[in-house]
Amino acid sequence: MASNKKFAEIATKWNEAEAVNHDIVLSTRVRLARNLAALPFPHGMTLAERQELIDAVGRAMKDTPLGQSGYCFFRGEELTELEKALLLEKHLISPQFAGGMKEQGILISADESIVVMIGEEDHVRIQSFLPGLQLSAALAGANQVDDWLEQGLDWAFDDKIGYLTACPSNVGTGLRASVMVHLPALAMTGRLEQLFAAMGKLGLTVRGIYGEGSESMGALYQISNQVTLGYSEEEILARLETVINQISAEEQKARDWLKEQQTVKLHDMIWRAYGTASFARTLSLREMMDCLSRLRLGVDLGILERMNKSQLNKMLIGGQDHFLMKEDGRELAAGDIDILRASFIRGVLDGK
Amino acid sequence: MASNKKFAEIATKWNEAEAVNHDIVLSTRVRLARNLAALPFPHGMTLAERQELIDAVGRAMKDTPLGQSGYCFFRGEELTELEKALLLEKHLISPQFAGGMKEQGILISADESIVVMIGEEDHVRIQSFLPGLQLSAALAGANQVDDWLEQGLDWAFDDKIGYLTACPSNVGTGLRASVMVHLPALAMTGRLEQLFAAMGKLGLTVRGIYGEGSESMGALYQISNQVTLGYSEEEILARLETVINQISAEEQKARDWLKEQQTVKLHDMIWRAYGTASFARTLSLREMMDCLSRLRLGVDLGILERMNKSQLNKMLIGGQDHFLMKEDGRELAAGDIDILRASFIRGVLDGK
Repeated sequence: MASNKKFAEIATKWNEAEAVNHDIVLSTRVRLARNLAALPFPHGMTLAERQELIDAVGRAMKDTPLGQSGYCFFRGEELTELEKALLLEKHLISPQFAGGMKEQGILISADESIVVMIGEEDHVRIQSFLPGLQLSAALAGANQVDDWLEQGLDWAFDDKIGYLTACPSNVGTGLRASVMVHLPALAMTGRLEQLFAAMGKLGLTVRGIYGEGSESMGALYQISNQVTLGYSEEEILARLETVINQISAEEQKARDWLKEQQTVKLHDMIWRAYGTASFARTLSLREMMDCLSRLRLGVDLGILERMNKSQLNKMLIGGQDHFLMKEDGRELAAGDIDILRASFIRGVLDGK
Repeated sequence: MASNKKFAEIATKWNEAEAVNHDIVLSTRVRLARNLAALPFPHGMTLAERQELIDAVGRAMKDTPLGQSGYCFFRGEELTELEKALLLEKHLISPQFAGGMKEQGILISADESIVVMIGEEDHVRIQSFLPGLQLSAALAGANQVDDWLEQGLDWAFDDKIGYLTACPSNVGTGLRASVMVHLPALAMTGRLEQLFAAMGKLGLTVRGIYGEGSESMGALYQISNQVTLGYSEEEILARLETVINQISAEEQKARDWLKEQQTVKLHDMIWRAYGTASFARTLSLREMMDCLSRLRLGVDLGILERMNKSQLNKMLIGGQDHFLMKEDGRELAAGDIDILRASFIRGVLDGK
């Protein structure tokens, strides 16, 4: 197994965490759901209509900057199963899209800050990815793509309620803003459940790193807006940003408390994770993610001076099953992947 | 807290494991129980009689090589609580002796291969310590001391049953031979209980590293003869040696099996222990002992080439509470000792 496509490399825009000075918020994603007025929603489309959708969007792109170099367009059949899995492990596409039918299309910008899925739950889902907490900038990126596409496409839009979408939960702005946060100190001090319950009341949703229905791993959570109707895009983002800033402050307080009141326990935990990462010969995905969480906390708190965020970011993407398989070039059993993962992690620590 | 006595150093004869080419048997101890015919057994003695005992044994020693340089004699009151604790942590005296009354005496040879306790359960307990499996040599060492003492002392002896002792279980030869074995592979493969049950039927006793009633730690066990009556010293030792050789062979088989059939699991376990030893900031005694067991297995199997047995032996003695306190010079709380232990272990790994 191999891939020569650029997105098969580990680096991706949202994971350039060095670029943004934010320890707790790893990344921001904004997506806009759009549908063509002339076609039924994807779940009711024939294969011919799906083909028509891809052709229409492809044509609309062609006459805009999206058709220029700097953007790559792929039809579903041009991507192997491995390549779809790699895109999924970079969180650039949804599990639904990765496992979907043939008649799909995807547009990816060179730095992967823009990814447009065609033929997912909605006709078009414009996604904008940035590192750290950059809600407005991410929205601006998505809006720019929306504007370009609108020049050639007629979106399903109702003057009273806004953009029409396949699922009522997206009707209105079609906007979902999602922020990936790292909350190890709140997890350790047992404060998360209470905070997450409060977020539900504020119309926000909390998910694990692998999206809807996924468990949390490595103290990484995706926090996003639930409601898209009845508020402006700016209002939705402002509310999310307020909550994210509050939760970041809480996490920072919990980190300070651990650092001052639980110094030995904290250092012990972080250095043991470093020991495991340095020497384990087999690592499950879950254990790697837990290790990474502790290592990241150690880097954030200045305890693990011998590591840096580039290493952590490389491990976060490259330590996943399909990235490991791609490197190894073979289809592997679960036990073999865990061995490969441990070896990969040791290699990154050794500066490879 | 401090001690300038030589036995307060970490090195001790039985722990010179490099000297004897035996991976599984760490050390051999032979002890002879002897009592003076003219005095009641210790549990029935007055303080004056205990004083008389020490004087009598002291006089008898004086005219033999035991009175020369190369041997140190201490009265109980010359040893601090810390020093008794250090002797206990080196397994050179019994907990009973360490916690006993004032009127005690102890003779220690320069290399600590000979330790005589006076006023323990019996009047005199001659102990001979050697590294590896050296039952005959250890018995010869103890017998030599017995011969020297006999020149000036009249042992309680019955022509029919042999030496008389405070506890009937020691009557006859007064001999207890004890071998410290490291059985990590048998412990991992769940075979120990069955083997230990069989040993009971053969008249042998199995104890943890801290003696009677102690739990096992770090897969270290002391195997000794139960019966001292009705067999010659040579018969007792031959039977013990046969069983020890059998159990060593079983352990070796289990190690080979792990090495061949559970390669990754074995390497992973050993290297993780190395990671913990290298980076933990707090280590309980139990966790240190478990780590040491895995590290020792790694060294034995040639997996941990960067470590050697001197380091392991240093950790085994020096990583105990009182040796750590002695180095630190203060009385410490349990949590502080665990921090000190982790730091000591890291230091030994760093070649300190």
